Amino acid sequence: MQDTPQNPSSPSQPTPATWPDAHASDPRALGWMQGSPPPADKTIRFDDGSFLRFPQLRWSLSHLREFVPTTAIARAPGAPSELPLALRDDLDALHFTSMHGETLSWREALLRTYYDGILVLHRGRVVQEDYFGEGAAERGHALFSVTKSFVGTLAAVDVQQGRLDPQQPVAELLPELRHSAYGSASVRQVMDMLIGLDYSEDYADPQAGIWDFSRAGGLLPRPEGYAGPRSYGEFLATLRQQGEHGTAFAYKTVNTQVLGWLLERLHGQRLADQISQQLWQPLGTAHDAAISQDPTGAAFGGGGMSATVRDLARFGEMMRLRGHFNGRQVVPEAVVADIEAGGQRSHFAQAEGYRATLPGWSYRSMWWVSHNTHGAYMARGVHGQCIYIDPAAEMVIVRTGSHPVASGVSNDPITLPAFAAVAEALMRG
Amino acid sequence: MQDTPQNPSSPSQPTPATWPDAHASDPRALGWMQGSPPPADKTIRFDDGSFLRFPQLRWSLSHLREFVPTTAIARAPGAPSELPLALRDDLDALHFTSMHGETLSWREALLRTYYDGILVLHRGRVVQEDYFGEGAAERGHALFSVTKSFVGTLAAVDVQQGRLDPQQPVAELLPELRHSAYGSASVRQVMDMLIGLDYSEDYADPQAGIWDFSRAGGLLPRPEGYAGPRSYGEFLATLRQQGEHGTAFAYKTVNTQVLGWLLERLHGQRLADQISQQLWQPLGTAHDAAISQDPTGAAFGGGGMSATVRDLARFGEMMRLRGHFNGRQVVPEAVVADIEAGGQRSHFAQAEGYRATLPGWSYRSMWWVSHNTHGAYMARGVHGQCIYIDPAAEMVIVRTGSHPVASGVSNDPITLPAFAAVAEALMRG
Repeated sequence: MQDTPQNPSSPSQPTPATWPDAHASDPRALGWMQGSPPPADKTIRFDDGSFLRFPQLRWSLSHLREFVPTTAIARAPGAPSELPLALRDDLDALHFTSMHGETLSWREALLRTYYDGILVLHRGRVVQEDYFGEGAAERGHALFSVTKSFVGTLAAVDVQQGRLDPQQPVAELLPELRHSAYGSASVRQVMDMLIGLDYSEDYADPQAGIWDFSRAGGLLPRPEGYAGPRSYGEFLATLRQQGEHGTAFAYKTVNTQVLGWLLERLHGQRLADQISQQLWQPLGTAHDAAISQDPTGAAFGGGGMSATVRDLARFGEMMRLRGHFNGRQVVPEAVVADIEAGGQRSHFAQAEGYRATLPGWSYRSMWWVSHNTHGAYMARGVHGQCIYIDPAAEMVIVRTGSHPVASGVSNDPITLPAFAAVAEALMRG
Repeated sequence: MQDTPQNPSSPSQPTPATWPDAHASDPRALGWMQGSPPPADKTIRFDDGSFLRFPQLRWSLSHLREFVPTTAIARAPGAPSELPLALRDDLDALHFTSMHGETLSWREALLRTYYDGILVLHRGRVVQEDYFGEGAAERGHALFSVTKSFVGTLAAVDVQQGRLDPQQPVAELLPELRHSAYGSASVRQVMDMLIGLDYSEDYADPQAGIWDFSRAGGLLPRPEGYAGPRSYGEFLATLRQQGEHGTAFAYKTVNTQVLGWLLERLHGQRLADQISQQLWQPLGTAHDAAISQDPTGAAFGGGGMSATVRDLARFGEMMRLRGHFNGRQVVPEAVVADIEAGGQRSHFAQAEGYRATLPGWSYRSMWWVSHNTHGAYMARGVHGQCIYIDPAAEMVIVRTGSHPVASGVSNDPITLPAFAAVAEALMRG
């Protein structure tokens, strides 16, 4: 559900050494969910948890709404915004060196990161668009924590327009959290993940909070006799503080869940409708997006969206153009400028897991900011989802994926040099 | 999930005398699902079954995908087909006489049938479009058995194009059903609901087959220790014959479930993708539709679709124009002509429940055919869903609704004279 530097394996998953490669795990070649009905050993289900296991997730991340209830994030009813094609066939052969010193082609990088969809925009034109396995142009893909950047952008708009005071204590808007860790946290601290929290997202630990959070929200099956929290809100109220707020970046999905809840309270409007009206409709998307929800109807703002690669490219291009897209100012320019400027790098440096792969980065309003010479920044979700915006190269890359390892950090040694190489190639013309 | 002449009340529902009217049951006025989270007594849930109870269903039929997993029926990515406006404000005051001899206005008819959405097309132009409660232009509404007409149309296309032999025994394509009632049935008998079946859809009977069917498919919560069939397919294989096939119309949702299954086997393609590629994309719809599915991924072809009123109008207009819409022949003209011509009225007359409200009608390829002087025919779903095509009046009416009584027969005494009155008014100009 998030991007974590800790051991990213889910319980009872094989070790990385045994992962089959992209072709060997191609869900079509493996026959997952083929036939009516599929054979029992090729059926992927919610109730046995197989939908989030590798290699099954190579199929299910392109079909997540078939496993859990979702709310529609409606597109506008008219014609979609333009995404003109200027396809090039030279990118696949482009070579670069990974952080591990390995020389790879862009095509190899895509396969090594288990991509399901890739779209590269240069100056607003599609220079590459390609799908693998169950990835398809018209099919929404699970975005996991890329969702957070939508929620963070909405909150940043509210802050910029004066509807939301970033210094306000969260508990003033959400009194339900008064006795939780969030009782002493500000809105800005939540937006930038600067919350001291007794809560773990270590996927290797079956006792970690992330599993309890998922069961509370109905995103994982609950055991018989389950007596834990029965909604995201109930779970959030149980969280206890550990350490100070405001001093260190600590990436935890629950923070975004709080922020989405806060936006619903602020606007008196469901999160799906806020995303639809403020972003999805003005962007001129081609398909409705989706967001999963808990059994009380609360959206999973921390990581529940699914959308098509093309529609994500529209969102990324709007950000690259500092909010102006489809003939209108979708998001105020000041909001994008604030995200581009990033958060405090000293806060980010406190988090241990990113030193090797994201040195000098920061986190702002639920976006990951590189502070590299191109001013690149990203939305990132587990299993390889990302929107990468490179203002200097006038480039946006959207990649969906179904990498066996959840954490983005595990594929960053290939992903980040590969994206930089594509940027350089596009700048050369 | 279907349209039945028997007692349509779900178990433990109040009697019709106590139904609040449209305004008194307006889900917005009642505060259903408002607030984050909504108050416990205003929360509608899947796991307690409240999502299908009245008045909660006035909210949930506009949000069905929030309660059960669904597959997307993808639209084409480009601009939607034209639905030009030619709005008139004189229809609401139009008066007609119901089958009970009551004089009502069209506006009263809409409210008395608990409409959520209404769209009237005349010569391809929108003369009326209006929503109530949770109904909204961009929001898909549960269609229930209107779904059947999509499945029936696809099967009729396959028959017309020679891919499907209507005389072929069903069990040749679906050997899993060899020992069921369908072992001795032909494809055509299934398409026209001429199957003798030991199976009841009496909503008042908690032991009726329709509930077992729904639990097997995961559309109703299963009790702890549930040991029944765990998919639609498993349930269908348990059905036993009662009486002859081919002699009498007997409306049962399971027949369409068999037909949808058969289409998946025939094409080696999921039903959602067949509907998308053969109908939804060529029609130039504006939104993805949805179809619910069982825990093995099998689509609920008997009644699982949700779609917007406008997109349904596109489907209806395509049928009115004998298959030609959006600049192409979406469905062969011969298929529409065969549906317009209807089934055997003597078969239909064998079914007792329709004699008062649908005298002289027939059923063909999952469409209800009036044989009236206008040649009108309908797709019908419980709680008031319908697409009404009146070729003589060059009119299509789409209505979505959340009537407290499931059966369409209960609202036909108002609905059918009202539709006829609108047709007459439009023909007068």
